[in-house]
Amino acid sequence: MDRPRVIRVHPQDNVAIVVNDGGLRAGARIPDGPVLPGAVPQGHKLALVDLAAGDPIRRYGVVIAHAARDLPAGAWVNEHNTVLPAAPALDDLPLATVRAPQALPVSATFQGYRNPDGSVGTRNLLAVTTTVQCVAGVVEHAVRRIRDALLPRYPNVDGVVALDHVYGCGVAIDAPDAAIPIRTLANIARNPNFGGRALVVSLGCEKLQPARLDLPEAALVTLQEQDGFGPMLDAILSAAETQLEALNARRRETCPVSELVVGLQCGGSDAFSGVTANPALGLAADRIVRAGGTVLFSENTEVRDGIAQLTARAATPEIAREIIRELDRYDAYLARGGVDRSANTTPGNKAGGLSNIVEKAMGSIVKSGSAPIAGVVPLGARAEGRGLLYAATPASDFICGTLQLAAGATVHVFTTGRGTPYSLEALPTIKVATRSDLARRWHDLMDINAGTVATGETSLAEMGRQVFDHILAVASGAPTWGERHRLHNALALFNPAPVT
Amino acid sequence: MDRPRVIRVHPQDNVAIVVNDGGLRAGARIPDGPVLPGAVPQGHKLALVDLAAGDPIRRYGVVIAHAARDLPAGAWVNEHNTVLPAAPALDDLPLATVRAPQALPVSATFQGYRNPDGSVGTRNLLAVTTTVQCVAGVVEHAVRRIRDALLPRYPNVDGVVALDHVYGCGVAIDAPDAAIPIRTLANIARNPNFGGRALVVSLGCEKLQPARLDLPEAALVTLQEQDGFGPMLDAILSAAETQLEALNARRRETCPVSELVVGLQCGGSDAFSGVTANPALGLAADRIVRAGGTVLFSENTEVRDGIAQLTARAATPEIAREIIRELDRYDAYLARGGVDRSANTTPGNKAGGLSNIVEKAMGSIVKSGSAPIAGVVPLGARAEGRGLLYAATPASDFICGTLQLAAGATVHVFTTGRGTPYSLEALPTIKVATRSDLARRWHDLMDINAGTVATGETSLAEMGRQVFDHILAVASGAPTWGERHRLHNALALFNPAPVT
Ligand SMILES: [Ca+2]
Ligand SMILES: [Ca+2]
Ligand SMILES: [Ca+2]
Ligand SMILES: [Ca+2]
Ligand SMILES: [Ca+2]
Repeated sequence: MDRPRVIRVHPQDNVAIVVNDGGLRAGARIPDGPVLPGAVPQGHKLALVDLAAGDPIRRYGVVIAHAARDLPAGAWVNEHNTVLPAAPALDDLPLATVRAPQALPVSATFQGYRNPDGSVGTRNLLAVTTTVQCVAGVVEHAVRRIRDALLPRYPNVDGVVALDHVYGCGVAIDAPDAAIPIRTLANIARNPNFGGRALVVSLGCEKLQPARLDLPEAALVTLQEQDGFGPMLDAILSAAETQLEALNARRRETCPVSELVVGLQCGGSDAFSGVTANPALGLAADRIVRAGGTVLFSENTEVRDGIAQLTARAATPEIAREIIRELDRYDAYLARGGVDRSANTTPGNKAGGLSNIVEKAMGSIVKSGSAPIAGVVPLGARAEGRGLLYAATPASDFICGTLQLAAGATVHVFTTGRGTPYSLEALPTIKVATRSDLARRWHDLMDINAGTVATGETSLAEMGRQVFDHILAVASGAPTWGERHRLHNALALFNPAPVT
Repeated sequence: MDRPRVIRVHPQDNVAIVVNDGGLRAGARIPDGPVLPGAVPQGHKLALVDLAAGDPIRRYGVVIAHAARDLPAGAWVNEHNTVLPAAPALDDLPLATVRAPQALPVSATFQGYRNPDGSVGTRNLLAVTTTVQCVAGVVEHAVRRIRDALLPRYPNVDGVVALDHVYGCGVAIDAPDAAIPIRTLANIARNPNFGGRALVVSLGCEKLQPARLDLPEAALVTLQEQDGFGPMLDAILSAAETQLEALNARRRETCPVSELVVGLQCGGSDAFSGVTANPALGLAADRIVRAGGTVLFSENTEVRDGIAQLTARAATPEIAREIIRELDRYDAYLARGGVDRSANTTPGNKAGGLSNIVEKAMGSIVKSGSAPIAGVVPLGARAEGRGLLYAATPASDFICGTLQLAAGATVHVFTTGRGTPYSLEALPTIKVATRSDLARRWHDLMDINAGTVATGETSLAEMGRQVFDHILAVASGAPTWGERHRLHNALALFNPAPVT
């Protein structure tokens, strides 16, 4: 058997996670720690010190439960010998109670594309956006022709991206919630990676008229004004040339990290997500914030049960109340659809060592680091201000990524344990593996291996620094695996309003 | 000025529509009809006979309103001199009151692909379906390689289609309404055009596990079991070869039209939709039904205000009650999202000659012809039985088309006035223009010009026969414009359940 190995995430934690394959047997001795009175499975928690009945169980630096009885150091801590905290009601939460940690400023730069509106992109892309799905087939043909026939003549342009979606017609466009997909589409086209030079392709009679997107500098092609399929392609290619001409003049220049907007997400998580990739990402996020940059974290249903930690970390009581409002609205949305939230922690989660829903949420929240939450980005809105922001999106990988694109993210970092080839086309997507096994097997998909934290080959601090450095390299133009393969997912709009 | 020209849709109608550009002046004489006492705009109705106050106004063979005062033959009939019928409540509708029209059987055949389960396809396609959006990027690469490297070796296979969608994870998979997208995806993969030989690409950890699709004869590739991107592509290509081998053995054979399933839809409609393309399609639909075939018509929000005509035409009271149940459920879905149905008839509709919402609905319903409604297809279900069926889908072109694909349609007929390049990849999509001007301008997109009905160059009966013949030709392999250009829209699932 390997040398016993555990991971403690936060210095104040009184439990740690077993790393070894197959878990640890009774009698195993933790280096600088207790001897185990009984076996503890892999991914599960053991007590680092003697705990008395009623003592708080601290993981991720927060109380995730209380001891149900006395537990000696080394004992397995699980859902049977702990007491769940009360369900987090929304009317009695701590508001901005945590003092911001000491944060020495960091000075760092990257090579970005500065835009006329002051924003900075990490890529130089021609966006071909659409007001309705009817035009998608024509746009697909046009994009292929732009890529093959035009791009070689505009060497400073990195690529062309079709912003394809199923919104725009056959929808209740004046329903109260329709504002969400509409502003999402408008803000996606304004993403800094597109340099303010999107091309809008409209059918003509759709409900989502181009004026609703309010994109004054975008070029517009209306298919119903063209005399057939051939002329449609010609019109799009001609408009594309005008925009490519302008985009081709963009050049990378040295920009402070304060101009960077990094969107964080996880998907296909496992027991190691919360101990390797996510905390390393949290350290990188802290570093970006200390450099004055912007970090977006998200995933309503994954933070919901750790909401007390978010409201406590809010920079002001008003920001805490905004977080509560967003999650309250999401609760109501789920309830309207008859969703039973109690099914949140699955048997698989518990078998993997997650004793309860607070612990599960903390494993996701830990990727946000420890900075104060400086603001909330509503669904589909563009992020305002800098620092760590909560972009209140669903956890669905595609919808979260689409909304972070709308929020103005210019780099996307995605942690995964079980593995997904997920990637966005308009946003370089850095994939971080939680386990070395996954990183080895998917060597041509995973950009960073955080699994070496679990085996002790790399310290969490070093891994945090690696992730930070990798973010700056990618922001400066280094391609991700997704970009190398030109491998990407579709966009997915969040539309809680009815279709018609 | 052109010779005065009007269109009467149904022999029992006592009003007709003015065709002439610019409308007709006072004094104009309708051939075999009245002299106009005043002007009537294009697309608007005139009385064909003297009407007394209280007389029913018949259009499409149904009562769309009553005369508010005496109206002489030739008078303009509009919303000011007619009385709207009562809003169609759902609790007092005629149930199966219309006697089925005399229907002489029609004998006709097409060249189709007969499947082991008895269904007949019109195309021989390899479907690569997906359980979750994570895999879409990999599938896109794989489909390109299948097309380029494998298809040339399987000459009897018409193509390969990626069934890409954003469902499958990050969704409330146990919410009551989740059954709709799940059975939609399962039934799409069972469409007769795929020969029972779909290939399912799964990630591994997604909520929509492949077993939920219940596709015993499908091949399965799970990406999380593969060692990276290269091996993922190899695994999909290898599974594709097995299925292509089987599909390549399929041959077209002579099949009766009773094996054909034709899905009807309209989109981007104009004032002529209800007088040229839709009634011609209605005659073609009647002919398919008389030949024992299956016709699906749809679009809840467009038939809602003509529901009395549907329930009256239902073959049995139980079928009428099923129609009512489906539309009642859709009313509730729209109400949950705060949609105001009273906005249905727009000022543009009225300016175009549509006096009220019943008349608007009838312009859409007329494409279903005059056969009795023999059954209702619930959302996402596969059609059972033959004859004219109401597939209770939203009107959204993409969602309606996707649900008709799930219902087992093997040919799609789409009428359009304003023009849309809409087309499905898995289902040959015949586009019918309502106006000659559109058909001329979009000569490389519109498959049939029904506009010649308005100008009298073609009778409605002849046009109905042309549409019928064209459906059989396309069912037998003649390519549509969409297929020639390989131009198609994305699928769009109807998912009224929440995302998470
Ligand atoms: Ca997540
Ligand atoms: Ca996610
Ligand atoms: Ca329609
Ligand atoms: Ca439609
Ligand atoms: Ca696509």
